[in-house]
Amino acid sequence: MKKIKLGMIGGGFGAFIGDAHRRASRICNDFKLVGGVFTSNYEKGKEFAQQEDLDLKRCYANVDDLINGELALSANERIEAVAIVTPNCLHYEFASKLLNSGFHVVCEKPMTLTVEEALNLKNMVGDKGLTFALAHTYTGYPMVRQMKELIKSGALGKIHRVDAQYYQGWVNSIINGKDSGITGVWRMDPEYAGVSSCMGDIGVHAFNLIEYTTGMEIDQVLADLSPVKDNVPLDLDGTVLVRLKNNVKGVIRSSQVAAGEENNLTIGVYGSDASLKWSQEDPNFLYMLSDSEPTKVYKPAHAYNSDFAENSHVMPSGHPEGIYEALANIYKGVAKSIRGNDVYQGEYPTVEDGVRGMKFIHSVVKSNEENNTWVDL
Amino acid sequence: MKKIKLGMIGGGFGAFIGDAHRRASRICNDFKLVGGVFTSNYEKGKEFAQQEDLDLKRCYANVDDLINGELALSANERIEAVAIVTPNCLHYEFASKLLNSGFHVVCEKPMTLTVEEALNLKNMVGDKGLTFALAHTYTGYPMVRQMKELIKSGALGKIHRVDAQYYQGWVNSIINGKDSGITGVWRMDPEYAGVSSCMGDIGVHAFNLIEYTTGMEIDQVLADLSPVKDNVPLDLDGTVLVRLKNNVKGVIRSSQVAAGEENNLTIGVYGSDASLKWSQEDPNFLYMLSDSEPTKVYKPAHAYNSDFAENSHVMPSGHPEGIYEALANIYKGVAKSIRGNDVYQGEYPTVEDGVRGMKFIHSVVKSNEENNTWVDL
Amino acid sequence: MKKIKLGMIGGGFGAFIGDAHRRASRICNDFKLVGGVFTSNYEKGKEFAQQEDLDLKRCYANVDDLINGELALSANERIEAVAIVTPNCLHYEFASKLLNSGFHVVCEKPMTLTVEEALNLKNMVGDKGLTFALAHTYTGYPMVRQMKELIKSGALGKIHRVDAQYYQGWVNSIINGKDSGITGVWRMDPEYAGVSSCMGDIGVHAFNLIEYTTGMEIDQVLADLSPVKDNVPLDLDGTVLVRLKNNVKGVIRSSQVAAGEENNLTIGVYGSDASLKWSQEDPNFLYMLSDSEPTKVYKPAHAYNSDFAENSHVMPSGHPEGIYEALANIYKGVAKSIRGNDVYQGEYPTVEDGVRGMKFIHSVVKSNEENNTWVDL
Amino acid sequence: MKKIKLGMIGGGFGAFIGDAHRRASRICNDFKLVGGVFTSNYEKGKEFAQQEDLDLKRCYANVDDLINGELALSANERIEAVAIVTPNCLHYEFASKLLNSGFHVVCEKPMTLTVEEALNLKNMVGDKGLTFALAHTYTGYPMVRQMKELIKSGALGKIHRVDAQYYQGWVNSIINGKDSGITGVWRMDPEYAGVSSCMGDIGVHAFNLIEYTTGMEIDQVLADLSPVKDNVPLDLDGTVLVRLKNNVKGVIRSSQVAAGEENNLTIGVYGSDASLKWSQEDPNFLYMLSDSEPTKVYKPAHAYNSDFAENSHVMPSGHPEGIYEALANIYKGVAKSIRGNDVYQGEYPTVEDGVRGMKFIHSVVKSNEENNTWVDL
Repeated sequence: MKKIKLGMIGGGFGAFIGDAHRRASRICNDFKLVGGVFTSNYEKGKEFAQQEDLDLKRCYANVDDLINGELALSANERIEAVAIVTPNCLHYEFASKLLNSGFHVVCEKPMTLTVEEALNLKNMVGDKGLTFALAHTYTGYPMVRQMKELIKSGALGKIHRVDAQYYQGWVNSIINGKDSGITGVWRMDPEYAGVSSCMGDIGVHAFNLIEYTTGMEIDQVLADLSPVKDNVPLDLDGTVLVRLKNNVKGVIRSSQVAAGEENNLTIGVYGSDASLKWSQEDPNFLYMLSDSEPTKVYKPAHAYNSDFAENSHVMPSGHPEGIYEALANIYKGVAKSIRGNDVYQGEYPTVEDGVRGMKFIHSVVKSNEENNTWVDL
Repeated sequence: MKKIKLGMIGGGFGAFIGDAHRRASRICNDFKLVGGVFTSNYEKGKEFAQQEDLDLKRCYANVDDLINGELALSANERIEAVAIVTPNCLHYEFASKLLNSGFHVVCEKPMTLTVEEALNLKNMVGDKGLTFALAHTYTGYPMVRQMKELIKSGALGKIHRVDAQYYQGWVNSIINGKDSGITGVWRMDPEYAGVSSCMGDIGVHAFNLIEYTTGMEIDQVLADLSPVKDNVPLDLDGTVLVRLKNNVKGVIRSSQVAAGEENNLTIGVYGSDASLKWSQEDPNFLYMLSDSEPTKVYKPAHAYNSDFAENSHVMPSGHPEGIYEALANIYKGVAKSIRGNDVYQGEYPTVEDGVRGMKFIHSVVKSNEENNTWVDL
Repeated sequence: MKKIKLGMIGGGFGAFIGDAHRRASRICNDFKLVGGVFTSNYEKGKEFAQQEDLDLKRCYANVDDLINGELALSANERIEAVAIVTPNCLHYEFASKLLNSGFHVVCEKPMTLTVEEALNLKNMVGDKGLTFALAHTYTGYPMVRQMKELIKSGALGKIHRVDAQYYQGWVNSIINGKDSGITGVWRMDPEYAGVSSCMGDIGVHAFNLIEYTTGMEIDQVLADLSPVKDNVPLDLDGTVLVRLKNNVKGVIRSSQVAAGEENNLTIGVYGSDASLKWSQEDPNFLYMLSDSEPTKVYKPAHAYNSDFAENSHVMPSGHPEGIYEALANIYKGVAKSIRGNDVYQGEYPTVEDGVRGMKFIHSVVKSNEENNTWVDL
Repeated sequence: MKKIKLGMIGGGFGAFIGDAHRRASRICNDFKLVGGVFTSNYEKGKEFAQQEDLDLKRCYANVDDLINGELALSANERIEAVAIVTPNCLHYEFASKLLNSGFHVVCEKPMTLTVEEALNLKNMVGDKGLTFALAHTYTGYPMVRQMKELIKSGALGKIHRVDAQYYQGWVNSIINGKDSGITGVWRMDPEYAGVSSCMGDIGVHAFNLIEYTTGMEIDQVLADLSPVKDNVPLDLDGTVLVRLKNNVKGVIRSSQVAAGEENNLTIGVYGSDASLKWSQEDPNFLYMLSDSEPTKVYKPAHAYNSDFAENSHVMPSGHPEGIYEALANIYKGVAKSIRGNDVYQGEYPTVEDGVRGMKFIHSVVKSNEENNTWVDL
């Protein structure tokens, strides 16, 4: 099967998310990276392209050049899809241009800086009939997908409570070091990151996992955020009360200064009949609790799983697949969509998930500014 | 050493908390149960006393009889301390009478139904110079005490965040069964339980663990509680945002309808240098996380622990002690106090902890009624 | 119900096993300690008795005095059962005398120094019709009992393999310290401990758990033992291949020099349909694995457990009971037996288990001496 | 950087190990698959090549054709390295031919069917100066490499004991199904698999991990193997006592019929000062135990790790990498070697590791046949 020709914006030397996208695209084996704009420094970008053994003619100085250069090629040679792995502030501009020029897009999250931009992108995607995927990587884990399918099957009964956590500690060394540390990190600079650091960068993943696994929307939020230190312009820590339909309540906890926490994203969904719990650092274990039966531990590569979960894992049981494979599962869904095949619901996060995420981030910041009151999404 | 003569109010046939107090008093070996009022049904109470091999003359029909009967005995024979393990609504009356008659008291939590009663009790204890202990059992675990001592030593640096959870699921079978189920359970009946079920019965333990381990007070709460079902008069589930001094924020999550959860009390305290996490269902493991070192797992019976933790565990390392031993540690502290020995700070929970707990419960309920606004404790 | 009057041989100041027996006897609430011979130093023994608030007249200088003193009392006052918690070398003499004088006995393991002594004791117990229990404490854990019952029910299918481990590390500090360290520790002195240290003290527990949970006997052993250091007279580490009937094979691993291991006793039984795994340091979790279903985690205090397991746990689910409660469960079985009630199979370890253990220890040592060849038990 | 052109023998439709090699080669990004002999059925092979988007001219009917075809190409185009992922019986023939024709080789394990063949291969590799790697995938995990480095640094003191386990359960469904099931599985057919199933397929990984992490050689083995059922020609389960230099002893346990076990490879190395434990199903956690300090949990992507471990993980801490990344680390070492760069000791398993493995397998089978006696490797 012919590989889909992939371009990339961002992701040059030292960029771990760009590297993850490249690896994921190679793992799923449906894509071939052929060019891109790897950094704003053109010379560095070419060095990088050389290291990646790419045709230097397809290493461009900027996105406009890439669009023009590729459109000048025959359809058979041309980049078909572009991965955007730049800081947040550039997502909207680049995604808009690429969509308007007919390229499919895989975009890092958060999708844009504002809700309005997000809605614009949604319209573009609808108008153009192109594939647009948002990199909510964690939805690619087999056991997250199994969780979604178990909930859809009604295994939990009536849902009572949702509870998600995303704790990291890496910002400690920055805020407890020199001041210049903060300014050097784009995730904590409003100009590059948008209105939020902690909620925008990681809290939104917790939000997304709740909506993804339950298939329900969060309607209202009440947030208490903290910059932790005086000279920090954005939130580094916070808690968000959430309300869904049918009297379901819950909470999202997130921090970038929880010392020693690495990438501790967890989700629990509690129902009248059973509950499900999953943790990103042990991604191949899914726990189902009930009041009347022994706790059950689901793992990938077993006939007891749903087809969707099973199709998201390749190795026999007990052979751990990790985060690259999760992202590769999303790339696989994107490839199916680009090739015009039927895509299963949840196989890749869409522009609609991006709109939801932006609404979450902005509602949370608003609630915090308005003295911790309820804000509708 | 002479045993302290113990009486008990409540705790007859089928009462698991009363049984736990009796076991704990026997484990620590400083007490000898000699009598009590084991149930409101006098005949049943005598049957129970017989089963326990007690002198039936010291099985009383009510608390007044107990006080009068025991005061008529010589000081050498007389009950010295009384454990109150009745439903919440009776704690205040019985504790008041017993204190006023010169008995030391060990009381189940929540201490009273109102903050005013709690403050009255505090005054009585102060006036009488008696020992009063509140059964915040979890503070008796060696690794909780080690956590308190590590924080006191400054091991965490500046505290950023506190995070406690108390999830149970046992109420599911009641609210999803017949309606009569609810009325039969005193913990969900306002007349017996007070203003709260979930927060009053278990959320308050999470609150207490935060204050106990950090040595800091929670100043403000904002709560979102839920009765989960229409015909339930009290909260069965809720989340509480909390604020402490020095810009420390956090959250308490609690539920009695988290299906399959048994007694899942956890606490995490996150600081600038390190964090500590503990879970009640694996009580002999304490985790210290830091950004720069491997995670450390503390266990009891090691020279690396503080004296306070070491004095709270008897067996060599790897021999699990459990919840009875935790409560026995509290009884041991009570015995030291009754005997006039120096008591280490935190060795048993005091009437002051009871006042704090009542303030928490009432503030949380108030915040929930006032549309989830901040309430000072 | 009248308490059974208990005596104790050994267990004075600083003896953790004696203390554990006393606590267990108090927890189960069927016994009352009334006297004993707590140490070979009579003065120290009396000090100890005083601390325990015992009648000093019933603190005896030696076992003969105890027997004579107690037989002189009325049957109503007299000690009925005696716990022997001395070094191994004294078990046989004291147990023989006590049985011959009509006392029930609870004995620490290993039961004797030789197989012959063990068989003699077995005959005495049979002749006298007395209750004799061996302190294989781990058989008192609810989840070990659940494991036994699940296997008995056929849940595993045909058993393929048994696998038990008992790792400790505490001897490291002795053999890596001064030579005198070794001579000061009776467990490593052949005169006090018998023919084996590691296998006699802990390996035999692993052996016992295999026979206890499977209900099968180990027929043959092949052992490779190690004193680890030149000047150590007994084994401190070893592995034993085992063979049972019906082509079942397995292995027992044991060490007292596995650095950092505390009391890491584990057992796995693997069958054609399912397997069961349990670990002593997390005693309230039992894992059932199968090739076709999610792993199941059994915990105490659930209706899905067998009656035997449920009767071995008192608190609601999620309230951890520990090793004292395990030993208390054995004392409870002993009390039932002494009172003439029906005792469920496995409710307490018997003299027959003691004979099996001695055969194991001696066969293992013989196999090791005979160049690691198979030895019949 | 130019990619190394890779060929593959075996690994067609449905072959999970071949797929793993292809993914690993893409993840490390140093290789490009350009052709191969994907199955003995040439038509199927071409279908497979088409699916992989390969040049059909370089999909060959057999290994001779591949060698001839590739040698006819310019050095610039020619396959440089070949991955052999066929059943065991074909490894030796194909590896010999390829080495003799100047191709570098990556070979699945066990390397050959006999020790003699293994020694021949070793000579060939030495003579030709080519790179030969054996796919002991688990040595590619960052925490296995950290374990090796910690031991090399002396962190454990004097090693006392080694203990490795490899349990799977997948053969249960075969031997408990129809007889034809067994004959259809090449791993259990002596003609294809060699003298051993369980030890040859998985026990050898446990053996390899002991030698890899300790840097010591196992000198002697004593094995007790079991075919489990009458009509099974090879071992499916077994235990191996092992002896190393300096009085180090240990044990390898392995089974393919441990019901419910998936891929449960574990290793523990116990020393006088500390011990290390690692488990393949949670590969990103390494536990260091000591008698005097809290247990330490090492994880990837921390400055406290050795350079070798750190260079084997790309993502920030807490982002789980899995088994494909482990194999990719080995491919990365192979690429460095092929390109003539310095290779760190242990960066990929060599032909010498293959010789060791064959000696282990044959010694174990011999010991079992000779009534479980010691056999020198």
